[in-house]
Amino acid sequence: MSPAQARRLKPGDTIGILGGGQLGRMLAMAAARLGLKAHIFSPDQHSPAFDVAAKHTIAAFDDEAALAHFAQEVDVVTYEFENVPARTAAVLAEHGPVRPGPEALAASQDRLVEKNFVTSLGIETAPFAAVDDAGALAAAVGRIGRPAILKTRRFGYDGKGQIAIREGTDLARAFDSLGGVPTILEGLVNFTKEVSVVAARGIDGEFKAYDVCENHHVNHILSTSHAPARISSECAAEAIACAKKIADALDYVGIIGVEMFVCEGTGKNGAPVQTIKVNEIAPRVHNSGHWTLGGAVTSQFEQHVRAIAGWPLGATTRHGATVEMRNLIGDEADAWREILAEPGACLHLYGKAQARPGRKMGHVTRILPRED
Amino acid sequence: MSPAQARRLKPGDTIGILGGGQLGRMLAMAAARLGLKAHIFSPDQHSPAFDVAAKHTIAAFDDEAALAHFAQEVDVVTYEFENVPARTAAVLAEHGPVRPGPEALAASQDRLVEKNFVTSLGIETAPFAAVDDAGALAAAVGRIGRPAILKTRRFGYDGKGQIAIREGTDLARAFDSLGGVPTILEGLVNFTKEVSVVAARGIDGEFKAYDVCENHHVNHILSTSHAPARISSECAAEAIACAKKIADALDYVGIIGVEMFVCEGTGKNGAPVQTIKVNEIAPRVHNSGHWTLGGAVTSQFEQHVRAIAGWPLGATTRHGATVEMRNLIGDEADAWREILAEPGACLHLYGKAQARPGRKMGHVTRILPRED
Repeated sequence: MSPAQARRLKPGDTIGILGGGQLGRMLAMAAARLGLKAHIFSPDQHSPAFDVAAKHTIAAFDDEAALAHFAQEVDVVTYEFENVPARTAAVLAEHGPVRPGPEALAASQDRLVEKNFVTSLGIETAPFAAVDDAGALAAAVGRIGRPAILKTRRFGYDGKGQIAIREGTDLARAFDSLGGVPTILEGLVNFTKEVSVVAARGIDGEFKAYDVCENHHVNHILSTSHAPARISSECAAEAIACAKKIADALDYVGIIGVEMFVCEGTGKNGAPVQTIKVNEIAPRVHNSGHWTLGGAVTSQFEQHVRAIAGWPLGATTRHGATVEMRNLIGDEADAWREILAEPGACLHLYGKAQARPGRKMGHVTRILPRED
Repeated sequence: MSPAQARRLKPGDTIGILGGGQLGRMLAMAAARLGLKAHIFSPDQHSPAFDVAAKHTIAAFDDEAALAHFAQEVDVVTYEFENVPARTAAVLAEHGPVRPGPEALAASQDRLVEKNFVTSLGIETAPFAAVDDAGALAAAVGRIGRPAILKTRRFGYDGKGQIAIREGTDLARAFDSLGGVPTILEGLVNFTKEVSVVAARGIDGEFKAYDVCENHHVNHILSTSHAPARISSECAAEAIACAKKIADALDYVGIIGVEMFVCEGTGKNGAPVQTIKVNEIAPRVHNSGHWTLGGAVTSQFEQHVRAIAGWPLGATTRHGATVEMRNLIGDEADAWREILAEPGACLHLYGKAQARPGRKMGHVTRILPRED
């Protein structure tokens, strides 16, 4: 580890954040609470994170002069999205630590690289095959079967850049519909729950996970998370162990979000057993960890700041029996008055001017008595 | 109530805050969490609150042009300190609502006005007398006795602007030592605990108090607070009832902090009874309410924002059995590494560059199992 990579911050230092959306905004506030300054780098002059940061730079992510200037003004660089171009990360890394590091970006930007990496650790995923042309798609469908999902290897999120391969789907047309770019075919997993592990790893390898949480998606966008997930304690331990194995293999620093499927099976003794398959890795604070803000002693945003500052990680203890997080998407945020009037509901609005359909405008957390 | 006074905010609106210290900083972050913008007005170019606010104005509190411009840019004005000049408040009030209102400022800026106001509500205080010259001091000491404390009527805080009148204290010299300004003599109260009520009142009169908390001062500066205070439930109810009576009488909007003494006595039936005497009113978020940030469902900062925005108040439910708040004063903040490493401790640093003796640099909250 170079001296820059081992750098530890002190109060008064500055965290540079690539991206000015709600994740950058909540990171900037967590940094401020710990006496750090935030400097946001974003191409969007209306970035919500600017409102809570000591400084901001408006420039494109490929503006190398602006990146170099930014890097010189901050003590560590982090990011709120995984599609940071490799060249951007490299320019920044010349000046100081970038956390999480380039291995984490490489492993999460490309679905094929990601799945190969995860399976190389002995962790299960959905069946998958690389598909670079329509011919390869036919072969892959022959092996994996239908239904399956064809996804672009890069730049997909919230259900964008993917198409279902059902009985009768025209394969050539399906491949072309994604633009002819390199893709991956993923078999369907017969899962009963979608869960995620949000965990942090410090610069000395310290690892702390939050309770596994259970996620519900609507239209491919996260709608609600509940912590803890209603899964067996063995399954929860396995999920956290997988996240740790992934973070360790990447020499990871910061919060990592690992999305997983829970599958029901039968153990050797005939008893029911739950197993997990990893779906996706996010090298950043994660939407399914928003419940920790107000729902746990240390929020994921504070935890990420602690990790990238080279500080000890905080307690991940949950407040209350169950914490529910619900995203406010598009005009769902119009319910802010009712949410404010609801006893115990904790409202977060992201300061975005326009409520477009599918846009995450805020979220609300609720500490609930145990239901099940 | 004029239309301006009744104004309710909506997400995206701006809260103007007079003062750029740690209270303004924590208010600005609470406002951002609810989708509001903060505009800080402070004469100090190094104000810690600037780092987390969408906008700031650097100008003196008597710069009427700057005040008018500021007031036009915000939807409500609040403040982090009670010594806002009356003229400043009046200039701002011409343009929109100032919350809490001028009655609250008038009642808390002058110790004599404050005590007369509180006693007019049938609430007890320490014995007191107005002292405008050395002759009046002799008469007041004759009535109240020694020891007692002579305080300037205005601009005192953290033990500044006061002198003890003990046996043998030269009265003329004591009076002169405070600068010959109007003063008040306060008799000592034989109290066993110092407590405070931090509570909020909304624009429609809704009232919500946090648990009464118990405060310990060192060198006249708050050192620690514990919630809940170890007092009888009757005494806690009386303390909260006093705070409500005060807030109602002022048609108060926002968080109010009321410092009180708890005295031990004997009830009519001979049983021990605890009674309270009000010491001081703070028309703002209060240091003894910092435990609510991380220690309660709604922090006092969010609650103040809700109140001054004309929104419903949030739940004041405490997390855990006891919450301790400890101020980090001067070089006590140097212990930040140890505090970060302590499981469950929640560190807040205010982003102040220099740690001068007596300067509040941060605080730490701890959720503790009940001790007594």
